[in-house]
Amino acid sequence: MRPYGRALHALRSVTLETGVSPYAEGSCLIKCGSTHVLCTASVDENVPPWMRNSGKGWVTAEYGMLPRATHTRGRREAAAGKQSGRTQEIQRLIGRSMRAIIDLRALGERQITLDCDVIQADGGTRTAAITGAWVALKSATGWLVEEGVLKADPVFGQIAAVSCGIVDGTARLDLEYEEDSKAETDANFVLTSDGGIVEIQATAEDRPMPETAFMDIFALAKKGISELGEIQNSVL
Amino acid sequence: MRPYGRALHALRSVTLETGVSPYAEGSCLIKCGSTHVLCTASVDENVPPWMRNSGKGWVTAEYGMLPRATHTRGRREAAAGKQSGRTQEIQRLIGRSMRAIIDLRALGERQITLDCDVIQADGGTRTAAITGAWVALKSATGWLVEEGVLKADPVFGQIAAVSCGIVDGTARLDLEYEEDSKAETDANFVLTSDGGIVEIQATAEDRPMPETAFMDIFALAKKGISELGEIQNSVL
Amino acid sequence: MRPYGRALHALRSVTLETGVSPYAEGSCLIKCGSTHVLCTASVDENVPPWMRNSGKGWVTAEYGMLPRATHTRGRREAAAGKQSGRTQEIQRLIGRSMRAIIDLRALGERQITLDCDVIQADGGTRTAAITGAWVALKSATGWLVEEGVLKADPVFGQIAAVSCGIVDGTARLDLEYEEDSKAETDANFVLTSDGGIVEIQATAEDRPMPETAFMDIFALAKKGISELGEIQNSVL
Amino acid sequence: MRPYGRALHALRSVTLETGVSPYAEGSCLIKCGSTHVLCTASVDENVPPWMRNSGKGWVTAEYGMLPRATHTRGRREAAAGKQSGRTQEIQRLIGRSMRAIIDLRALGERQITLDCDVIQADGGTRTAAITGAWVALKSATGWLVEEGVLKADPVFGQIAAVSCGIVDGTARLDLEYEEDSKAETDANFVLTSDGGIVEIQATAEDRPMPETAFMDIFALAKKGISELGEIQNSVL
Amino acid sequence: MRPYGRALHALRSVTLETGVSPYAEGSCLIKCGSTHVLCTASVDENVPPWMRNSGKGWVTAEYGMLPRATHTRGRREAAAGKQSGRTQEIQRLIGRSMRAIIDLRALGERQITLDCDVIQADGGTRTAAITGAWVALKSATGWLVEEGVLKADPVFGQIAAVSCGIVDGTARLDLEYEEDSKAETDANFVLTSDGGIVEIQATAEDRPMPETAFMDIFALAKKGISELGEIQNSVL
Amino acid sequence: MRPYGRALHALRSVTLETGVSPYAEGSCLIKCGSTHVLCTASVDENVPPWMRNSGKGWVTAEYGMLPRATHTRGRREAAAGKQSGRTQEIQRLIGRSMRAIIDLRALGERQITLDCDVIQADGGTRTAAITGAWVALKSATGWLVEEGVLKADPVFGQIAAVSCGIVDGTARLDLEYEEDSKAETDANFVLTSDGGIVEIQATAEDRPMPETAFMDIFALAKKGISELGEIQNSVL
Repeated sequence: MRPYGRALHALRSVTLETGVSPYAEGSCLIKCGSTHVLCTASVDENVPPWMRNSGKGWVTAEYGMLPRATHTRGRREAAAGKQSGRTQEIQRLIGRSMRAIIDLRALGERQITLDCDVIQADGGTRTAAITGAWVALKSATGWLVEEGVLKADPVFGQIAAVSCGIVDGTARLDLEYEEDSKAETDANFVLTSDGGIVEIQATAEDRPMPETAFMDIFALAKKGISELGEIQNSVL
Repeated sequence: MRPYGRALHALRSVTLETGVSPYAEGSCLIKCGSTHVLCTASVDENVPPWMRNSGKGWVTAEYGMLPRATHTRGRREAAAGKQSGRTQEIQRLIGRSMRAIIDLRALGERQITLDCDVIQADGGTRTAAITGAWVALKSATGWLVEEGVLKADPVFGQIAAVSCGIVDGTARLDLEYEEDSKAETDANFVLTSDGGIVEIQATAEDRPMPETAFMDIFALAKKGISELGEIQNSVL
Repeated sequence: MRPYGRALHALRSVTLETGVSPYAEGSCLIKCGSTHVLCTASVDENVPPWMRNSGKGWVTAEYGMLPRATHTRGRREAAAGKQSGRTQEIQRLIGRSMRAIIDLRALGERQITLDCDVIQADGGTRTAAITGAWVALKSATGWLVEEGVLKADPVFGQIAAVSCGIVDGTARLDLEYEEDSKAETDANFVLTSDGGIVEIQATAEDRPMPETAFMDIFALAKKGISELGEIQNSVL
Repeated sequence: MRPYGRALHALRSVTLETGVSPYAEGSCLIKCGSTHVLCTASVDENVPPWMRNSGKGWVTAEYGMLPRATHTRGRREAAAGKQSGRTQEIQRLIGRSMRAIIDLRALGERQITLDCDVIQADGGTRTAAITGAWVALKSATGWLVEEGVLKADPVFGQIAAVSCGIVDGTARLDLEYEEDSKAETDANFVLTSDGGIVEIQATAEDRPMPETAFMDIFALAKKGISELGEIQNSVL
Repeated sequence: MRPYGRALHALRSVTLETGVSPYAEGSCLIKCGSTHVLCTASVDENVPPWMRNSGKGWVTAEYGMLPRATHTRGRREAAAGKQSGRTQEIQRLIGRSMRAIIDLRALGERQITLDCDVIQADGGTRTAAITGAWVALKSATGWLVEEGVLKADPVFGQIAAVSCGIVDGTARLDLEYEEDSKAETDANFVLTSDGGIVEIQATAEDRPMPETAFMDIFALAKKGISELGEIQNSVL
Repeated sequence: MRPYGRALHALRSVTLETGVSPYAEGSCLIKCGSTHVLCTASVDENVPPWMRNSGKGWVTAEYGMLPRATHTRGRREAAAGKQSGRTQEIQRLIGRSMRAIIDLRALGERQITLDCDVIQADGGTRTAAITGAWVALKSATGWLVEEGVLKADPVFGQIAAVSCGIVDGTARLDLEYEEDSKAETDANFVLTSDGGIVEIQATAEDRPMPETAFMDIFALAKKGISELGEIQNSVL
């Protein structure tokens, strides 16, 4: 039995709220069960130095977690003086995923930064961040079109992300922390709403996993992401 | 005229919400107009190395701001690799203020860390942080009493904070960003609900201020903090 | 046509040389075409503080690249004062992969550090590092058994890694730099010699990839890793 | 009784020596009892990047303490790799105070940096630094006028600073270390010679202070700063 | 008796291999007994900002050591977040030595960076680095002439380096680690092939050394460097 | 002609003042012409972790320079967040020199830290620091004997240091900045008062120097250090 009697192939309750930041060009607060991530998209009319005069724009992401977003307080990265390897890995994943579904040339020489800050964590923060960041990105590019800065929306694909895993021998969709911490296998999928693959990261925890297990969770992921895509569409 | 037709001696609309974190021993989301700060109090059964075997506890604070809490995106301090002087100044102020109204010996050898994270900023983030942090602290010490860890609440005073200033020649209570940025004089007061002084920081911006101006804003601060104290009491 | 007339499903020429370090408990210099990585395994009789008295050992990895391992000189990370996000991502991957095929309890309270230093880079450095690090690890655990420190080898699985991708519309095994830089899709597979999955990281570059493309490169990876496993066995 | 039989409202013996640096455009060695601070003012014909083309100059300050300026050796901040929060707080205070009495537009696009280095510490280092830095600043702007770079001195106000506190229940002027460490209340005042307020920082140590206590020490500060102003004038 | 029966005035077996890097403009792998250092010379058509428009070029060096180049694993400097004092001292020495035998004006406004990475260490890594770096530098300037970028080779002198010391009361040439660690006196000489002095660093370990001891090891150094110069010439 | 008509073999005017710090166990302010260095010796009853239970003490040094000790203001290392390579090289030299003339076992398990802070610089700061640090060290060990902590002074040798060089073709003793910046050859000698060698660092600037030049400046150094030794003795 999963926590709260959830079915193996069921997402946690998901809500997306847009326009939550009074200043950002796009924003989305995503809640997947007890995992809450605030995603903002900030448009900057400058690109990083190494991209100047390339005729192309850039999309990047930063990820953070409030110190008490978790059961026990974690160290504040700003106080520690550096971002952890985990943080860097996650923000690189978010940025890469967004760049896979936007035409950087059509964006023009400007940068969009997606800040994904975890207010509360209960597993699946990086996948929630991607699902929410896509909504924030889409809001920001919509704003650029509305403002007349761009003629057409440079975002050409819709993506969402979800984690799946094998826990106690069964494939499960959208792991929460209690499950995640004892999963035999853990994978994060970033897929388009029509099943295209943007990123797959599958990791065996204690021992290698058979290919069939991977296929089982891949199938769950496609189902979950299709549902997340509908929720995304309902708020845009 | 002040923005939104506010009276010179009026606070912005203030709300305090407790219990907003599912994990922290105490928490409070404070909203002063468009300034929103999430304050959590985390109890740790260890004190810093330099306090061990002193028979006393410790209260400290950390302050942060989400990159897009402001009109234009600020640099993430964790990515920059250090906390700014402003951040350090603010978190030292919050910690010092809290330690002025708690009996560290009665707290016993444990530490309470107050994390004050600005979700949205419109002036007065440090004073909102203090007003909210006091509620979070009080919730945490209440929890320690409830759990039977402490026999009595070691917090012996009630504090709140507010900024005041001279703007366009008039003394005003609770400055918002638009006023703050053009103030002739800017001061932050941390006072107890019965008028005791915990901390005063008054700064002349472009030129020195006369003592009468200081007295005017001091009077406003006392009025404002009395009102904040009532709001704090209403949620505890 | 691939560079040097290589077939789409062919590995580059691979050589493994063990015992290349006079000091390390295990070592392996792996050359995959023009990608050369020196892997050493260092046994330390202490574990990190957070693992003490757990009865378990630890395996970790560090990755580096000589500044002129690449076509144009890269900045030395020690001089820059930090490891890049890419470096951290890679060394976390190597460590995680090794931990999936070793029994940490059987290793006992000691740590093995795998240093993977890229002497020359021509694509596929992280996968070469894993293939070589496994040999270095196995040499080190073999040494622990020979020395009588351990009764049995705690390594229970054999792993290797390879990158695959879709380049110019065709699935290719073991990408070199020239191919990697223009790949539509790029994936790294860490598999056991009998087809178990340790880690899959698949990334669409410019646009999402269809599932069939992923399956094609997965098949190539299994073939390549089977061949790498034979080469590993031939030197141990 | 105060140390050395000093009266409650008496400053320690104060000496100011100008021209102590052979290279700096302005310099002052201030000795307040056993607190010795070397203040230099360096004129730089460039402003920070964010001020370029603003038509205005900038005044900033840096503060440091020799490791053995204190009873027990402190850690060298350069070796520690960062300035403490205390150091940053102090240097921000010094810079802010100086900017309140200089016309930055009249200064023109150049920067003056005030380096305040504590050679020996016995309480009140930040206030001594401000009193000395003003003399160094004034010397530097005087030099700019003499050299014909400026037509008139852009410094329009005279400031000094002093600490006061309540110790053993009595208000005292100019605390030395032994008093400071046991003060119930501690405040730093930066005032102009004619009583204008530049900065007030009052801090209750163990418990809140009554308003009357604050007024008592404010009165002492005005007296002390008037005396410091005369000493400043005597050396310029 | 020295290790391996070596004579007091004999170098260890030395080999130099050029062209070991497929990318660098000059490279040399030097092996002095069990000390192996990979030296690459990278030509960059830009000089550091402070040299722009000076009409002169620059030569600089960086030094590193693989973590397991030594008997026990050393901490990776990139992971530690900074280069040790020893590393900085060595790379400054290498750069200074190279600049003493090249005409920077004739080099033109370009920079050559010498990366000296120790693959294996058995004493004398800094002197081996200099001897090898000179060969790499010479290869790079030779390449600049061949490519027609420069008309004549700006390197006007030939240098090599060696360590000498007093061990067990006898003067010895080219110390290996076992000798170095117990030397009474240790000195590094950087000399030209015709006996000119580029750098001498002599250090008494436990107690001061007499001048005669210094003269003895100086004589040994001249002999050793003459031999190293012949080996350098044989590979260019 | 040298600046101020000084003879080629003459030291600048040198003064040593002891007991300048009210807190340090030993202290010395050394002035060599316009180069002023404050040296303090701090006794700490703890040794660094890696020396515990070794039965031996440790002597170490730190070096710093006030930002405006020089003609143009230098960057404060504490603000820059790290010590320069030059600073590290110098402080390592000072520490090494002191350890060559003290019996660490006789010192017992305690550490003496020599802080050498340059108040004013006009060439030769590192050699002045060594000459002054020896006096501070000797004062501190004298204090340890006086206090009854040690039975005998563990310092068994007397050292001083001086720089020499070839400027405009002539060998000169004790270079000042104007000479140092155009020297063909520059060397620092740390010698005992009876001519023993503790450290020699000779560096050719633009081109290698002949051995005779080195011998000339070595002779000057011995003369200068003999004179410095007499001045040291006169103040102890």
